Order: sequence, then structure tokens, then C-alpha cells
Amino acid sequence: MQRAAERIAPHAHRTPVLTCTSLERRVGAALFFKCECFQKGGAFKFRGATNAVLSLSEAEAARGVLTHSSGNHGAAVALAAAVRGVPATVVMPRDSARVKLAAVAGYGARVELCEPTAAARQETADRLLEETGATFVHPFDDARVIAGQGTAALELLGEVADLDYLLVPVGGGGLASGTALAAAGLSPRTRVVGSEPEAVDDAARSLAAGRRLMNPPGPTRTVADGLKTSLSELTFGILSAHLEAVVTVSEEAILAATRLVWERMKIVIEPSAAVPVAALLGGGVTAGWSAGRAPRVGVILSGGNLDLDRLPWQATEGDKS
Amino acid sequence: MQRAAERIAPHAHRTPVLTCTSLERRVGAALFFKCECFQKGGAFKFRGATNAVLSLSEAEAARGVLTHSSGNHGAAVALAAAVRGVPATVVMPRDSARVKLAAVAGYGARVELCEPTAAARQETADRLLEETGATFVHPFDDARVIAGQGTAALELLGEVADLDYLLVPVGGGGLASGTALAAAGLSPRTRVVGSEPEAVDDAARSLAAGRRLMNPPGPTRTVADGLKTSLSELTFGILSAHLEAVVTVSEEAILAATRLVWERMKIVIEPSAAVPVAALLGGGVTAGWSAGRAPRVGVILSGGNLDLDRLPWQATEGDKS
Repeated sequence: MQRAAERIAPHAHRTPVLTCTSLERRVGAALFFKCECFQKGGAFKFRGATNAVLSLSEAEAARGVLTHSSGNHGAAVALAAAVRGVPATVVMPRDSARVKLAAVAGYGARVELCEPTAAARQETADRLLEETGATFVHPFDDARVIAGQGTAALELLGEVADLDYLLVPVGGGGLASGTALAAAGLSPRTRVVGSEPEAVDDAARSLAAGRRLMNPPGPTRTVADGLKTSLSELTFGILSAHLEAVVTVSEEAILAATRLVWERMKIVIEPSAAVPVAALLGGGVTAGWSAGRAPRVGVILSGGNLDLDRLPWQATEGDKS
Repeated sequence: MQRAAERIAPHAHRTPVLTCTSLERRVGAALFFKCECFQKGGAFKFRGATNAVLSLSEAEAARGVLTHSSGNHGAAVALAAAVRGVPATVVMPRDSARVKLAAVAGYGARVELCEPTAAARQETADRLLEETGATFVHPFDDARVIAGQGTAALELLGEVADLDYLLVPVGGGGLASGTALAAAGLSPRTRVVGSEPEAVDDAARSLAAGRRLMNPPGPTRTVADGLKTSLSELTFGILSAHLEAVVTVSEEAILAATRLVWERMKIVIEPSAAVPVAALLGGGVTAGWSAGRAPRVGVILSGGNLDLDRLPWQATEGDKS
């Protein structure tokens, strides 16, 4: 992972670590927020994509990279490919937000639209991989991507000593796996705690059951749209071995935490990034804490990409009416 | 000013300096944003208020401090008084936003409501000063406050070498004066450029006329509600001597710049803080630039306090309909 950090250092931002007195008072802990919303492309995803793209051989790189994504990973791969100056193709569902399509295209990638189903996505990707000979860069089921995502925690742990807890959101588990591996190497006593929406709680159920369980197929409604994916065998294995717990939170708690971070910290985070903050505010993370001092808690604020035509808390009110 | 910096250092945040590639491309300059929205109380105002409160003698401090403000300065004085453990009174108009009243009270200050007129405000403040023997802390017409505000530029100039321009918003002129004095001392070749809304352009008119001109009395409509005040003789004198120019911007440009910073930088800034960004995007600031390289521009993002029930650009749409 140290090698991943060196590889991406010339290209990625070393994002700042911010604190917030009012949130610390509320939680009763010292809090250190690693602001990946300030990362290139607006999310930690740039780290993993860049490490993957820079790890390719010259011959592989020349044939380009391909991924499918409707969110931050697509933009990250497009940006990472531009860093190396190689072609990128991103397969995106036809119903993706226009702002996201424009972002990926704006970073110089070729956008290929497909029907909004998993089958169509796979078929389109397979066809294009065959045509181009490009390398597929998976959003999380890839050791190079995981190592890249872990560099955020590597920076945080190098900058802030003696963290008792380190909190991350869990979707496919790439960020959580990288974070857990970084902590295991650099600060084994730090407890890494995952968090996810109740609506897509596959990681919590999988860790409880000791085997990988999936989120139900079909559309799922959560404001944390970056966390809908289920774990892969690879990320399940890493998280089983290294995660202290996975805390689940309600949609209301996610929205309240999103707003609180905007209001108190003045940082635009997307609801997916607020999930660990919601877990912290709910009290579930530090419930078992019994040392004679307040715990020191690191939180990775994963990203800040969202539609600014509406506030997330307004969108929900609108849906209710 | 160095002494002000040492005085407030144990209490104020050393705010981060952030960059933004997409804004740099758009403007054709290297940009360095000093993020005072992350300052305690959500704005640079904490610096000046803290320097003023910590500069008082023991006897003065014991009698407390008083100010009038419906905005960030009231909260800053309340916070600064809490730092020293002395009483604070803030005179606020009855029609202040509830969130602002709550913030000032939450920081431990006594809130005194008055009718929303300048006369009532002054009368209430005078009566309370007589009663309590407190020291009045003016939002900008005070050398200690100006020195405190200047510490933001001091930090920025110490961290980023060779700035060609340094941009600040101008209301009463406290931040602009402190910034101009910091630059004059630390980096005389840096051109300090003020910016204000067209609707309250007293600084631009005053500097053009060579004498202090006021904004018209009565309510003024600008989304940049922190910049409605006119200069004082003190700040007019400093700005006349040290400011390169004052650029004025339209309401539309302010809203567009606010949104752009939220969207691209993921930082919650209030519209007043977006005024220098709007000036920069409008091209007026660097129009005369002719060196063989892109100019290096510092921007002080002054604060991030605003009502998050609505987005600023939504509020305007609502007003139009």
C-alpha cells in the first residue's frame, strides 16, 4: 500500500484533516475528518482508479481501460486515464444523471450508454472489452483499487496519532477494505468500523452470518446512492478478518448527519459520506468505550458529488408529498 | 499584526488553503483559497473579535464586551468572550434569523433585542454600555479588530509564496484593511483587490472619488448580506492607501460563483464570500495582467454561514416568482 501511495502521490490531492468542536461536544469524542470530498473528481475513488491505471504495463495501458459505473468510479477512471494519457471507456446506464454523464465525458472518456440493467451493463462491457482489448477496472473487486483507496487512511493515520476508531462507509467494500488493511499495517489497535444504510445492509448481515449475503435484487431506495452495491468475495474476506463491526443507520439519520456536516463543518458531502457520521451520532460506534478519556475517532468523508439543484433533505420532503 | 497572530493562535483555527483545478482552468490563473468558512463560528470574524477581547486589560475584560450585529460578528464576539471567560452582550434586531439568535445565545452571550433600525440599535447599545461598563467591540472600525482579521492573509502569505493578487470582499472594510496591511508588510508586490456587490458599491465609488461616500440609507437587496455596510473613516483611509482596485459584481454573478464553489470545491460558502470569486470569473481582476506566466491569485473565502433550508439560488428564484 505504501507503493500505491507513492504511485499516486504526484497526481492525487493530500486532502486536509478537519476538526469540528460542536460535533465533538455532541459525540463526546475527539474527531478527525479526512476530507476526500476535496479529492480530484470529488471522491476517494480517484485514488484506487489511479493506482490501478498506473499499475498497468505499457502494453496494457496502450489498449486503454474500461469500467461501468453511474457514479464516482466512472469519473475517477476517466480522470486516472487522463493522468496516464491512455483511452478510457465508461459504460453508463441510459438513465444516469446528465451532470454525471457530462462529467465523465468532460474528463475525456468515451461514454457508452446501455439499458439500466445489470445484464445489459455486463453485455455492453464484455463486447467493448473484446473490441478494444482494454483492461477492466472494477470499482472495488481489485487488489490495486483497494490499495489505492487505503491511501486515504494511510495519510490520516500518519497525520493523527493514536486513533481509537476509524469509521468508513461500506458499499462494495473497496474503501473499507483498503482502510482496514492500512490500519492493520500502521495502527493495529485502531478499531475500523464500517457503516451502511439499513436499506442495503448486506455487509452487516454478511459479517453476522459469517458468509456473504447479498442485497435484494431490483431497485433499492436509499439517499446514500453510492452504497447500494453488495460486497465481493474479496472485500468480504478482508472485512471479515479486519472489521470491528458494521453499524446500520436509517435514512432519516443519514439526512440529518448530511445537513449537520454542511451546517457545522461547511463541507459539501454527499449522503453516502454522511453514513459514518450518522453511525457516530447514533451512539452505536463508541457504546462499548470504557477508557478513562474521550475516544479519538477518525472519519473518512468519502465524497461530495451530488445534484445542487435541490438539497438532499428537500428531495426527501418532495418524495413524501 | 504579528502580535495579533500570536495572541489568537491558541484559540483560532489555522484554516487550510485549498486549490481547485477546474476553477484554475476556467480563470487561467493559479488559485489559492484561504478557507475562513472553516474558522470557529464559521467566518473570519472570530479572528478580529478574539484579538480585541484578548487585548483588553483585566479590569476592562471583567466588565465584559458588547456589540451590535445581526450576523457573523455577533457570534464571533460571543465566542471570543467565552474564550476569555468574560460576559458578552449582543444587541440584535428583533427580525434577525432565528438560527442566528440561537447561535449567539448558544455561545453563551446575552442577547438584547431591539427594533430593526439603526437608531434603536445605537440607543439600546448606548444604554447597555452605560449600565454594564462593558467595552464596545465594533465590527470593523477598530484597529485591534482589523489586525485580527489581517491574520488570515498573514497565514496565507506565509504559506503560499509570490502571490500576484490577493482578493477580498469589502463590506465595512475590516477584512480588506487587515488583508491590505498584512500584504503591505509581508509581500508588498502583491496587489490587494477588493470586491463588492453592485448594489452596495460604496467602496468602489469612494476610492474613485477620493472621499468617503456612503451606501444609500434604507433596506438594500443583495444576496451578499454581510457586505451591506459602508466604510468608516479608518477603513477608507487604509483602503485608499493600499488597495489596487475595487471590482463590483452583479447579483447573478454572485449566485453563480457561490454555486460553482459549492459544486467544484465542495465548500459551503455564503454569498458574501463568493463576491471575490465572482470578480475573478468576470475577468476584471486580472485584465491588466501581462507577465509571461499565469498570475498567482489568493482568495479569502470569508465565511460559510447561511440558512440551509433553502439554497441561495433557490431563494432568488422564489423571489422572482
